Amino acid sequence: MAEIEQRLVETADRITVALDRLLPRAQGPETRLLSAMRYAALGGGKRLRPFLLLEAGRIFDADEQALLRVAAAVECVHSFSLVHDDLPCMDDDDTRRGAPTVHVEFDEATALLAGDALLTFAFELLAEPATHPDPQMRCKLITGLAKATGPQGMIAGQALDMAGKDVGNDLIAITRMNRLKTGALINFSVEAGALIGCAPDDARHALQRYGHDVGLAFQLADDLLDLQGRPDVTGKAVQKDAAAGKVNFVTVLGAAPARERMQLLAAQAKGHLAIFGPRAKLLAAIVDFVMDRQH
Amino acid sequence: MAEIEQRLVETADRITVALDRLLPRAQGPETRLLSAMRYAALGGGKRLRPFLLLEAGRIFDADEQALLRVAAAVECVHSFSLVHDDLPCMDDDDTRRGAPTVHVEFDEATALLAGDALLTFAFELLAEPATHPDPQMRCKLITGLAKATGPQGMIAGQALDMAGKDVGNDLIAITRMNRLKTGALINFSVEAGALIGCAPDDARHALQRYGHDVGLAFQLADDLLDLQGRPDVTGKAVQKDAAAGKVNFVTVLGAAPARERMQLLAAQAKGHLAIFGPRAKLLAAIVDFVMDRQH
Repeated sequence: MAEIEQRLVETADRITVALDRLLPRAQGPETRLLSAMRYAALGGGKRLRPFLLLEAGRIFDADEQALLRVAAAVECVHSFSLVHDDLPCMDDDDTRRGAPTVHVEFDEATALLAGDALLTFAFELLAEPATHPDPQMRCKLITGLAKATGPQGMIAGQALDMAGKDVGNDLIAITRMNRLKTGALINFSVEAGALIGCAPDDARHALQRYGHDVGLAFQLADDLLDLQGRPDVTGKAVQKDAAAGKVNFVTVLGAAPARERMQLLAAQAKGHLAIFGPRAKLLAAIVDFVMDRQH
Repeated sequence: MAEIEQRLVETADRITVALDRLLPRAQGPETRLLSAMRYAALGGGKRLRPFLLLEAGRIFDADEQALLRVAAAVECVHSFSLVHDDLPCMDDDDTRRGAPTVHVEFDEATALLAGDALLTFAFELLAEPATHPDPQMRCKLITGLAKATGPQGMIAGQALDMAGKDVGNDLIAITRMNRLKTGALINFSVEAGALIGCAPDDARHALQRYGHDVGLAFQLADDLLDLQGRPDVTGKAVQKDAAAGKVNFVTVLGAAPARERMQLLAAQAKGHLAIFGPRAKLLAAIVDFVMDRQH
């Protein structure tokens, strides 16, 4: 596990440094808004999506600078989704990563607007020539991120998650919800790496399948943690889904079948990487790492 | 006034038809989210920004299809901002355009997510080849819209508006707040028309100045309506700013000086259009129309 952990920390640090440099300075009359954005985006996190994006791109020797900026944009979108998810009208969470959530540290209006600003800023980042010299590539990345995020992507998943049992509590409904809520952005991360690296079609398809399986495996791991995790380790409240009348893989399948399913998906995900040989070893290692994590 | 009113209604209808066609159908498990998006975006409004964009572009015989799609994207952003502005943690408004606001008609979580989805969808629209065949142009439009909307644009203005007196109640502070909150998106609308029309530099600069003055004149007209308007005519609550301890041009300057200032800016705005001759007559007419409006 040593290498993967080291690389995860390294990537997380690089992303935090990049975001710190790219996000607007917190100054002027709108300091409060800008501070809230920075608080949300720089406050840690595993930076899993950036890791997937960077490692997928590295298989094809993609330009590091391009990967880093796109990874920063993805992380802005991810941060936005957490800030809005934590709001009282959504999950009403007071802590995240062991610290007060944005609306608790600042206020609800500021959290709402900081989320909006992070989402917008992601597209600003992608559209700039510094991201990639080819505007066609930048447009493709923007289309991909917008589709993964918008009304037929992550945000639709958040809406389904809020609706909970009302939209069905069978395995098909819960799988679709998760494919949208967390899968879409994970898929985009992997695909963006391949896109920037100009990967050939068969490689892209293999990575798409990897992204699909990995997204569901990660969500199963999350749902198992929600059931079995300890709040002092996860840094957030646990067993919230059941308390909120929400459905997740564990409430639908039960813990043991959910764990089995996670392991199956993980094995399948790693199988899709076979064609890349040792170049994809970190993409394989991250799967085991996430399954074993305690937070 | 007849021609300008007719053209405004015509433009509003075209935008509503375009949005109806472009927005995702309200179907499937996420119907509620998609319905809320459509409710927000299709529920009327003067469509002033689309009007400015289309008329600015027409000076240079810009492609109508491109103008229409970009205008639809701008209106998605405008709709998003209204939905979030109306939320209980922001202005807490129950009615808009004489109908229940989105969080009242649906619920807070759905309104939050519908706003997020409209914002994201605007960038999806712009990035697609159907908007303009040149990806460089699409990137420029995305950069422009993101900057006008994001942490150094409209959203910063919303944050300053919420902060109210805390960030200063002098004319400089209130002008800056309005330049961000409503001016940035109005400026972008005019500039996008010029950009799509490949306007020469002097024409672009004249339109930038027009956009700047028109944005402030419109806001002054709004603030005067907030003081003097009748809720049965404006379709929303009035005198909310003073009640909420907010500052606006009228609370800072007083009604008569605010009206004078509005008229001065309007004359100045029309002056910038002189170089275009009769081609800009609708851009000139809209200024008077907005100043005289009762809602």
